[in-house]
Amino acid sequence: MLPQSNSESATPAMSPTIGVFDSGFGGLTVLRALIHRLPQARFAFLGDTARLPYGSKSRRTIARFAAQSAQFLVREQGAQFLVIACNTASALALDAIQDAVPVPVLGVIEPGAAAARAASKTGDVLVIATDATVHSHAYAAACQALGLRALEMACPLLVPLVEEGWTNHPVTAQVIRIYLDQLLAEAAAQGLNPDTLVLGCTHYPLLRPLLEQAVPAGMRVIDSAEAAARSAASQFAINLPPTPADPAQETELHCFATDSVEKFERLGSRFLDRPVGHVELVDLGG
Amino acid sequence: MLPQSNSESATPAMSPTIGVFDSGFGGLTVLRALIHRLPQARFAFLGDTARLPYGSKSRRTIARFAAQSAQFLVREQGAQFLVIACNTASALALDAIQDAVPVPVLGVIEPGAAAARAASKTGDVLVIATDATVHSHAYAAACQALGLRALEMACPLLVPLVEEGWTNHPVTAQVIRIYLDQLLAEAAAQGLNPDTLVLGCTHYPLLRPLLEQAVPAGMRVIDSAEAAARSAASQFAINLPPTPADPAQETELHCFATDSVEKFERLGSRFLDRPVGHVELVDLGG
Repeated sequence: MLPQSNSESATPAMSPTIGVFDSGFGGLTVLRALIHRLPQARFAFLGDTARLPYGSKSRRTIARFAAQSAQFLVREQGAQFLVIACNTASALALDAIQDAVPVPVLGVIEPGAAAARAASKTGDVLVIATDATVHSHAYAAACQALGLRALEMACPLLVPLVEEGWTNHPVTAQVIRIYLDQLLAEAAAQGLNPDTLVLGCTHYPLLRPLLEQAVPAGMRVIDSAEAAARSAASQFAINLPPTPADPAQETELHCFATDSVEKFERLGSRFLDRPVGHVELVDLGG
Repeated sequence: MLPQSNSESATPAMSPTIGVFDSGFGGLTVLRALIHRLPQARFAFLGDTARLPYGSKSRRTIARFAAQSAQFLVREQGAQFLVIACNTASALALDAIQDAVPVPVLGVIEPGAAAARAASKTGDVLVIATDATVHSHAYAAACQALGLRALEMACPLLVPLVEEGWTNHPVTAQVIRIYLDQLLAEAAAQGLNPDTLVLGCTHYPLLRPLLEQAVPAGMRVIDSAEAAARSAASQFAINLPPTPADPAQETELHCFATDSVEKFERLGSRFLDRPVGHVELVDLGG
């Protein structure tokens, strides 16, 4: 579906496309970081909002949903590279997605663990994430593979607080303090000396200012969204023209959702930090 | 599937069965109220946890899911009466469920509105519920049909707070205060004089103590779960033997879920106020 220009005409070819996928719209924080790094690329974002949350579903079901979404981005939107901007899908379905499409696929967990490895001096890191991601222990495994000890904790109230728009609210600050106190006490009980906190959910970057105020002095806060965007940008840059984009020209972005387009348009801008524009409804079946 | 005893033998016949259905396990608060009123009945509860939340889905999809769940309770569990212990399904799919099964079906919204009508002197009531229920305006319509003016407000953080177990927590008290202040200010701006608050979500009865502390003096708090149980009990009592049940004998209860049996068992007891026992996994397709 992606028009190709083979001539050296004056009109530029359509820019190479990165597909970004999430079960909802939290993954727009990954997209935001990607656009910042690759403004000259074209982006297609799909939120599988009709079937969210993935967190309560089985691995087989998540894999099927995620593969369908990936195929839409590659076949219908011409994506030459996919970023799975969803921790649950990255944790449970990365292999299935890689099998389903003939383009490179990057999840958020490995880049997040790699960034933690680069940041941590003590080798002990904390990971906050949703219930589903914590239960998968995907971060613990990815960290362990890099020689880190990771303590994971689910923070189920943080996503609803972000979706309510309370990203700079005293209630949210209090909830963060309660969760972090529990996590730090558990780390101390296990004899860990953590110096790094990994944000293992694509909603959490919106809470970064409150989280940075709440962590102990000197603790680094690692954003998996930012780490994944950095990794994707370095892998994808080879596809882009060497000349920088016209700074006056806005990055080309197409957003799709399987349901709840209205909520997507309303909340999406907050995650993306710019208007998401018109969100197109697509039917993937299921 | 329900064995029938036609003889006047010494062993009692299996008790008549009430089927109770929810997209998750919030509806266990309705079941709790039902068991309290009809301890001698047999209960089958189904939580369609694989496909929750219904709130973000279309009316057609919700109707299909809810009809499948209702048919399971009637065909497989011999339910002779169904209670839809889910505000979203009651708001959007009551007709579809009534068409799908040959037994009486009761939702939670009409009983809640009727209880508000009985409680309110001013004729102005407040309704708090989930986003989906508020957007359906089912409570406003049911209240208006009874001559009440209803102001509805979504309180999206209350369900996550209940599921986190913070039912008696200072953070929850603060969130309730913020929501109620907004709702009361809006009511005043509209020239309403509300004296009744309807809990339009099956999770909210667990917050009743905090809500009763937070409402203005004299305001009545109406629990749709309790109102629906009262209505179901009076309609169903004719099926039960006139002699009261043996108080030493525990009510017969069978719980089913379409996914997340572990979470159901863990959280369910909190909603039911007694152990839910073994939860059986069922596959309804979809």
